Amino acid sequence: MLSRKANKDSHGQDSSYFEGWQEYEKNPYHPIQNPTGIIQMGLAENQLSFDLLEYWLRRNSNTMALLKKDGVSAFRELALFQDYHGLPALKDALVKFMTRMRGNKTKYTSDKLVLTAGATAANEILMFCLADPGHAFILPTPYYPGFDRDLKWRTGVEIVPMHCSSSNGFRITREALEEAYQLGQELNLNIKGVLVTNPSNPLGTTMTKTELIHLLDFAIDKNIHIVSDEIYSATVFDSSSPTTTPFISIMEVVKERNNNNLNNIRERVHMVYSLSKDLGVPGFRVGMIYSNNEMVVAAATKMSSFALVSSQTQFLLSNLLSDAKFTEKYMEENQRRLKRRKEMLVRGLRNAGIGCLRSNAGLFCWVDMRHLMRSDSFEAEKELWKRILCEVGLNISAGSSCHCSQPGWFRICFANISEDTLQLAMQRMKAFTNSIFSSANHIIYNM
Amino acid sequence: MLSRKANKDSHGQDSSYFEGWQEYEKNPYHPIQNPTGIIQMGLAENQLSFDLLEYWLRRNSNTMALLKKDGVSAFRELALFQDYHGLPALKDALVKFMTRMRGNKTKYTSDKLVLTAGATAANEILMFCLADPGHAFILPTPYYPGFDRDLKWRTGVEIVPMHCSSSNGFRITREALEEAYQLGQELNLNIKGVLVTNPSNPLGTTMTKTELIHLLDFAIDKNIHIVSDEIYSATVFDSSSPTTTPFISIMEVVKERNNNNLNNIRERVHMVYSLSKDLGVPGFRVGMIYSNNEMVVAAATKMSSFALVSSQTQFLLSNLLSDAKFTEKYMEENQRRLKRRKEMLVRGLRNAGIGCLRSNAGLFCWVDMRHLMRSDSFEAEKELWKRILCEVGLNISAGSSCHCSQPGWFRICFANISEDTLQLAMQRMKAFTNSIFSSANHIIYNM
Repeated sequence: MLSRKANKDSHGQDSSYFEGWQEYEKNPYHPIQNPTGIIQMGLAENQLSFDLLEYWLRRNSNTMALLKKDGVSAFRELALFQDYHGLPALKDALVKFMTRMRGNKTKYTSDKLVLTAGATAANEILMFCLADPGHAFILPTPYYPGFDRDLKWRTGVEIVPMHCSSSNGFRITREALEEAYQLGQELNLNIKGVLVTNPSNPLGTTMTKTELIHLLDFAIDKNIHIVSDEIYSATVFDSSSPTTTPFISIMEVVKERNNNNLNNIRERVHMVYSLSKDLGVPGFRVGMIYSNNEMVVAAATKMSSFALVSSQTQFLLSNLLSDAKFTEKYMEENQRRLKRRKEMLVRGLRNAGIGCLRSNAGLFCWVDMRHLMRSDSFEAEKELWKRILCEVGLNISAGSSCHCSQPGWFRICFANISEDTLQLAMQRMKAFTNSIFSSANHIIYNM
Repeated sequence: MLSRKANKDSHGQDSSYFEGWQEYEKNPYHPIQNPTGIIQMGLAENQLSFDLLEYWLRRNSNTMALLKKDGVSAFRELALFQDYHGLPALKDALVKFMTRMRGNKTKYTSDKLVLTAGATAANEILMFCLADPGHAFILPTPYYPGFDRDLKWRTGVEIVPMHCSSSNGFRITREALEEAYQLGQELNLNIKGVLVTNPSNPLGTTMTKTELIHLLDFAIDKNIHIVSDEIYSATVFDSSSPTTTPFISIMEVVKERNNNNLNNIRERVHMVYSLSKDLGVPGFRVGMIYSNNEMVVAAATKMSSFALVSSQTQFLLSNLLSDAKFTEKYMEENQRRLKRRKEMLVRGLRNAGIGCLRSNAGLFCWVDMRHLMRSDSFEAEKELWKRILCEVGLNISAGSSCHCSQPGWFRICFANISEDTLQLAMQRMKAFTNSIFSSANHIIYNM
């Protein structure tokens, strides 16, 4: 009696990614009430800087409570405001915030911005705008497990994986892009574009200029779109050391090509952003599409009727983001805290004999546990993941749930728990690897 | 380069419904700054009781500003809260509110409720759950112009109109339902259900028990779904007079059939609700699906990821709705004010020689201007609509934009303007009809 979509489980809730969450919910760690419970390290939440947001809120409580604008109640206006063009004050504050946070290298303007209830809706709306059912987008693997739901489920769009490998630090190459394109053609799929996350979820790395140019050249050659999901752009906590790449938005790269607008590439580049990660407010549901293409902006604006942001929340965030002094301090301090946490995780893992991909952004590390597996297979990865979940008591995400083509990699989040809990998690890991390394049965594989 | 959806204009923005809005925006009435401007009477907004909401907000400002729960800041919890199951406190408050507002005739429970960012998203999600592209839903005409966008655009679902007529006050009959079903079959469409609005937008009437039973019997016979959009259920301002019908939810009627669950009808009845009209807060984007079907609830909950309600707004409304004393007084007073307004509009129109369909709910009247047209045609309706927009300076909605099958009917909203503005609108109408009636050229048609 129901639709194929309602019956079909293409939203991916039954992957191990969600299985781990369910196990965690049955037995969540608590320092006093449940000290042996499962520690949640599968959740890309930024909980490190709420004290700063709460401080701002206390200083502005009167405005926020009574929804006052210039001392007069704006309640009536806000309660009624459901224009899909969004609150001009919020859009203005957002583009100024983005321009500032991204080092004034590109000037963002509000006419290219469409507000949506979170990046989840933004990504789906872009698929509805750019592709018809049966068309496809190329995604570099490993990728965020939620994309199977967000991009495919209701739109009927397909994902063609582009396999990245540890041999070059999971970087995007022109060869891998061409291979994915070939695969799509063999599957008889009309490839409409490439979707990347920059900084990458789950890698925690920023894309290099070389990668971005490969991507752009590929899109020019094939006459396809680029969607760049940049929801972690202000989490970049390390951009000055010689081995790390500062964050470069796709919008900057395409701007450089502006005078030489090959194949109208400018109109085929679209960006997704959100405040969920950078500001740590996923519950407020503020996402957006930013596009140079007027038709995409027009169609996406109309589609945003299905995913409007609460006007009350638009008001709160327009006030908060226009406080340039506050947001700058917040971002600086937040990045400092993220870096400290990430280093704590890397040290803890190293101490347990585990390495990570070198990263400089995001709320997670991409962790190499290939040497802890019984064999080089996804069965062994699943087995190891299950042991870490049930025996060690850590919920982390297996690479296979991110469609990684190499078994043995895991995403571990570090910003959703306290420092004490992180330390405990690392002690547990050390005890676990000690037991493995000392076990006569263990064959050290791929060290 | 873009999708068919982005290129195609099936969202209906170019109908006269939207054309009127655009004209209004160019020349909006203001009592001092633009006294000859266009008065907006095409907007189904409830602006009559903001003083009551503002009063509540002032009394609860501290809780709301600092997002305090039991005196402790809930900011952190709320900022992170993005569970698609919704804030339990809001769902609990909502079902209690609905149970109370609907006279305790059916007990609503939170396990059957899915929160969405407005009824727009709720209706689309139900279509995604119940029908595949190319499947169809029957809609009684006249219907809300936005449904062409909400139900069809992204889902690929078709609408089969079921023509209601002034001869029986636009009531739903079994014959008309059967005719629409036949039409669907002739068009080779798989009819998956019937969608009604109760109270009706644009009629402003509640469905009678007889209509509801016809609808239910039809759905039982054909083995199809019913979607009942009840977003105006608490606007019913007249339910006691002998000529009006009190509001009866589809959920009450189906409950009576519970012991005799023919053809599993219970699992095929779904309701849409929202706070946009009853509470006058469309900007806050709080809608919902209420369904007896567990699979629909499960699929819709997952789909609500694309349309989550801001946690800040969930918190505000869970506090407001749990104040049972306040909400009861609010609804009583709001209904009293709506009734007064509606009577003012009816009197003003009668004074201008214009009649209305007898109504008892909603924020609008369904107005009969057939006698003011040059001929019994949609061209004449459009001509009259344009004159009222441009010469009289009133933006009202033509019946044709609501897919009414009889020319000459118009929807006029009464709750989005002040009493003075309403009186002025009526003066303008009277002057207009006087000029028509006194004109030698005018042929009185269909009086």
